[in-house]
Amino acid sequence: MADLFEKTNVKAGARTELHDALHLTGAEVSVNTLPAGASVPFVHAHRQNEEIYGILEGAGEAEIEGKRVPLGAGDWLRVSPAAKRRFFAAKDSPITYICIQVKENSLVSFTAADAVIE
Amino acid sequence: MADLFEKTNVKAGARTELHDALHLTGAEVSVNTLPAGASVPFVHAHRQNEEIYGILEGAGEAEIEGKRVPLGAGDWLRVSPAAKRRFFAAKDSPITYICIQVKENSLVSFTAADAVIE
Repeated sequence: MADLFEKTNVKAGARTELHDALHLTGAEVSVNTLPAGASVPFVHAHRQNEEIYGILEGAGEAEIEGKRVPLGAGDWLRVSPAAKRRFFAAKDSPITYICIQVKENSLVSFTAADAVIE
Repeated sequence: MADLFEKTNVKAGARTELHDALHLTGAEVSVNTLPAGASVPFVHAHRQNEEIYGILEGAGEAEIEGKRVPLGAGDWLRVSPAAKRRFFAAKDSPITYICIQVKENSLVSFTAADAVIE
């Protein structure tokens, strides 16, 4: 059984996946950096997972279902499983982003409805 | 029905919740800043949600089940639903963190198993 909590530290780098490091059970979370001018080398979609992207630093673009979406620090995206997506760093800037994978429609209640306040 | 993707932008501030803004279905994601010396004013646990915390900037501490856990940029935590938790900024530094709420044990497959590569 996993401990009640676990902690790890993510150093700057190409890609760090947290699912196994933290024994996550409800999400995969990755921290990713694309160097200036680079892109994820494939288009992908998902079978059942919603993805949530948050841009931490830098700039770039997503191409989602053929639509170009400019991205900068503080931008957050939800992408439905079926949407075909690809990510690009800007020509003159790296981009660092987190990607959260969760099962679509899996969250039943949250925050006030799920919390127990002492 | 929600669009295949949605985008929003989070400005620096006290707390931004993304569930409704992005029509998330598998997670609630919030971006939070506690000023130096401040803390979340209550201890809380959850009924069924795992929480994943990522520290974006600054420094502080969590108290989880009575154990003090120092927090700095790049640190990531998984906290089980039942664990009693509270968060503090450092006396001399604000802390900015994201909090991801997902239903415990809801992720069935992920990354290579769930992806469809074009």
